[in-house]
Amino acid sequence: MLPDSAPDHPEPLKELLHDVSKKIIPGLTHWQSPSYFAYYASSTSVAGFLGEMLSAGLSVVGFTWLTSPVATELEVIVLDWLAKLLQLPDHFLSIGNGGGVIQGTGCEAVLVVVLAARDRIMKKVGNTSLSQLVVYASDQTHSSFRKACLIGGIHEENIRLLKTDSSTNYGMTPKSLEESISSDLETGFIPFFICATVGTTSSAAVDPLVPLGKIAKSYGIWMHVDAAYAGNACICPEFRKHIDGVENADSFNINAHKWLFANQTCSPLWVKDRYSLINALKTNPEYLEYKVSKRDEVVNYKDWQISLSRRFRSLKLWMVLRLYGAKNLRNFIRDHVNLAKHFEDYVAQDAHFEVVTTRYFSLVCFRLAPVDGDEDKCNERNRELLATVNSTGKIFISHTVLSGKFILRFAVGAPLTEEKHVNEAWRIIQKHASIHNKKY
Amino acid sequence: MLPDSAPDHPEPLKELLHDVSKKIIPGLTHWQSPSYFAYYASSTSVAGFLGEMLSAGLSVVGFTWLTSPVATELEVIVLDWLAKLLQLPDHFLSIGNGGGVIQGTGCEAVLVVVLAARDRIMKKVGNTSLSQLVVYASDQTHSSFRKACLIGGIHEENIRLLKTDSSTNYGMTPKSLEESISSDLETGFIPFFICATVGTTSSAAVDPLVPLGKIAKSYGIWMHVDAAYAGNACICPEFRKHIDGVENADSFNINAHKWLFANQTCSPLWVKDRYSLINALKTNPEYLEYKVSKRDEVVNYKDWQISLSRRFRSLKLWMVLRLYGAKNLRNFIRDHVNLAKHFEDYVAQDAHFEVVTTRYFSLVCFRLAPVDGDEDKCNERNRELLATVNSTGKIFISHTVLSGKFILRFAVGAPLTEEKHVNEAWRIIQKHASIHNKKY
Repeated sequence: MLPDSAPDHPEPLKELLHDVSKKIIPGLTHWQSPSYFAYYASSTSVAGFLGEMLSAGLSVVGFTWLTSPVATELEVIVLDWLAKLLQLPDHFLSIGNGGGVIQGTGCEAVLVVVLAARDRIMKKVGNTSLSQLVVYASDQTHSSFRKACLIGGIHEENIRLLKTDSSTNYGMTPKSLEESISSDLETGFIPFFICATVGTTSSAAVDPLVPLGKIAKSYGIWMHVDAAYAGNACICPEFRKHIDGVENADSFNINAHKWLFANQTCSPLWVKDRYSLINALKTNPEYLEYKVSKRDEVVNYKDWQISLSRRFRSLKLWMVLRLYGAKNLRNFIRDHVNLAKHFEDYVAQDAHFEVVTTRYFSLVCFRLAPVDGDEDKCNERNRELLATVNSTGKIFISHTVLSGKFILRFAVGAPLTEEKHVNEAWRIIQKHASIHNKKY
Repeated sequence: MLPDSAPDHPEPLKELLHDVSKKIIPGLTHWQSPSYFAYYASSTSVAGFLGEMLSAGLSVVGFTWLTSPVATELEVIVLDWLAKLLQLPDHFLSIGNGGGVIQGTGCEAVLVVVLAARDRIMKKVGNTSLSQLVVYASDQTHSSFRKACLIGGIHEENIRLLKTDSSTNYGMTPKSLEESISSDLETGFIPFFICATVGTTSSAAVDPLVPLGKIAKSYGIWMHVDAAYAGNACICPEFRKHIDGVENADSFNINAHKWLFANQTCSPLWVKDRYSLINALKTNPEYLEYKVSKRDEVVNYKDWQISLSRRFRSLKLWMVLRLYGAKNLRNFIRDHVNLAKHFEDYVAQDAHFEVVTTRYFSLVCFRLAPVDGDEDKCNERNRELLATVNSTGKIFISHTVLSGKFILRFAVGAPLTEEKHVNEAWRIIQKHASIHNKKY
């Protein structure tokens, strides 16, 4: 639909916008549609959009404090604001040795903390090889954790993904962690990193931070909390309990672009000890030297992340927080959770379906229930249901597999979603299910 | 100037914009000012801004082909367009095993290719330790190269930063590379990566790609070309010679946000063998599975980069290329180069100053000339000149150090810069220099 090469001469904007309508829009998966219920949402807002515009318009690069002091200073302030909304412990605030930084994604966040922890343990134990280092997470942990470890040279066979099952609603079992660590220590390995998740990607499972944090602390292991999706909900008092125990974590991450209306991309990360990040990631080229930085008085965010360059990242988050206020943001989140609950009620009332995991937030994991206990056929039917429902083009849902069960995921989070969209989605799912039921 | 915590209730936009004027703008370093001549520019344009708006408005996430087919397909097409404008060899195009991908920054680009090369060599040599692997670059290479290597677990003492000097205008010497490789091979090391630069950060030095590429090829070493800044100029036939030899490289990167008017961030990377990236960076979580990907028919950009999530990155570049056309983009670049030449002429005509390195692009490296051969005093005078010139707040220039000489950098690249701004900058520099000259 497009030519083989770029034009030599400028083309009119009108022509380009015509192509956007005719060739681009039809090829999109509409993440902002009110009938988008797949994966987790990428939540946008007018404030987030205005923030993007202002940041693109000013177009400064804030790699060091000097290259735009306010870009750095506003980020420090706004991440303190957000830490307070989340009731994070004081040691994550900028007043002491901790602090926050906006990463591009949760993947970058987990990578930088794996590197900080790797640097810390290598300095501590001295003469050792990467092949001795061991990391822990559950088998529900986001794929970016394994990828971060491999990037950092951790051996694949030293990545312990502890088995979970329905008995803990797919949360990590402290006992399995403790046993795994003990066994590794006995065989001479060096445990150095635990990734706990609050709101896993498959089913929004919650790892129990309190006991995990105690184990991490007792062995001196870095604990990271990946709360990319569900962490946002913790600005509401009624959801805050899910991150109880975060006070024993070394780092904590949420994706504000997932469920805090901050537009792609905005991934706040807090660390207890900012020097652990800086020690692992700092660079000191002469051409970026300036007087203040030598006195260690200011923050240079280039040393808190993978890349040197960074946009004016905090502007957008600052605008979202101010233009909506904590009250409205909480209400947005509660609305989504209530809509998910509404969908869950539909599922529970239909004998052909079942809710598969306990719902904590705005994700419902469900499926067509097995007939005569035939799990294979059940998986096949749900696979077909997913394909036919999505092929209507009316709604978009996604799937996962838990304990061998093919499961449908219904995640509420698009800002325009209302009850009528949830009702319509359920109508479509039920309709196609009844066609399948007749078939079998 | 700002409160300690986020507001509970929404604040009016008017109030926020008032704070932007009074508290944000005054704290910026104005990268888009026509009198900004520091570092390298972060070039913006109306088309780039519109691209950012459209991308933020649509707000789709293109991690796999399925999650917005057009976001992936347009990226493939537009990077082919840009590769053709740069006259890159066919093996970097999407038709064969190669292809392009937009990274966030040049830092991410060099990191992913170091990881791809590391994966390739580890598979090739089998049972070995990271401590055997050796990498090469010049001492002028961007700090992100060393950082990428350390992230990937390469030992610091195995990063060979080959010495350069004024005899090659700070370009890497093929002889020093060949000698270093030979000596490493003799002592049992495994050379696997060379980072060549076209347009270094300090002085826009150019490593000689033709001989370096031959060496890389003969030893089977991955060669990456970092052309973050100067690569953009290679869309002009008269500058294309600087990347002659790129046909022997395994990967090539430019920052279109630096000097192709694409706004932060847009960092195209091309690789000869896309499977080398995919093998090193792929993830296969069940919740992202879909039928087409299994047949390997489509591109899933999540496997070409560090992060899973990605915005609709190509839209902006597509708009820049179409709304200006290659012709205008070439003219923008030529204007900047001519303005730099204009400044260079001023420097050359003033006996108190000297041009320090040969200028190829839009960066002039200059300094107050030493008096009676006193290099220490000369450095001190230039350091003071930098500080006083920048403290006027009228212009912003930066510095570097080459062979112990403190050097001033005058980089043209802000889109609004005209001859009058260059004239005024020179007037300010000359005025402050004459104050210093009286002082000594």
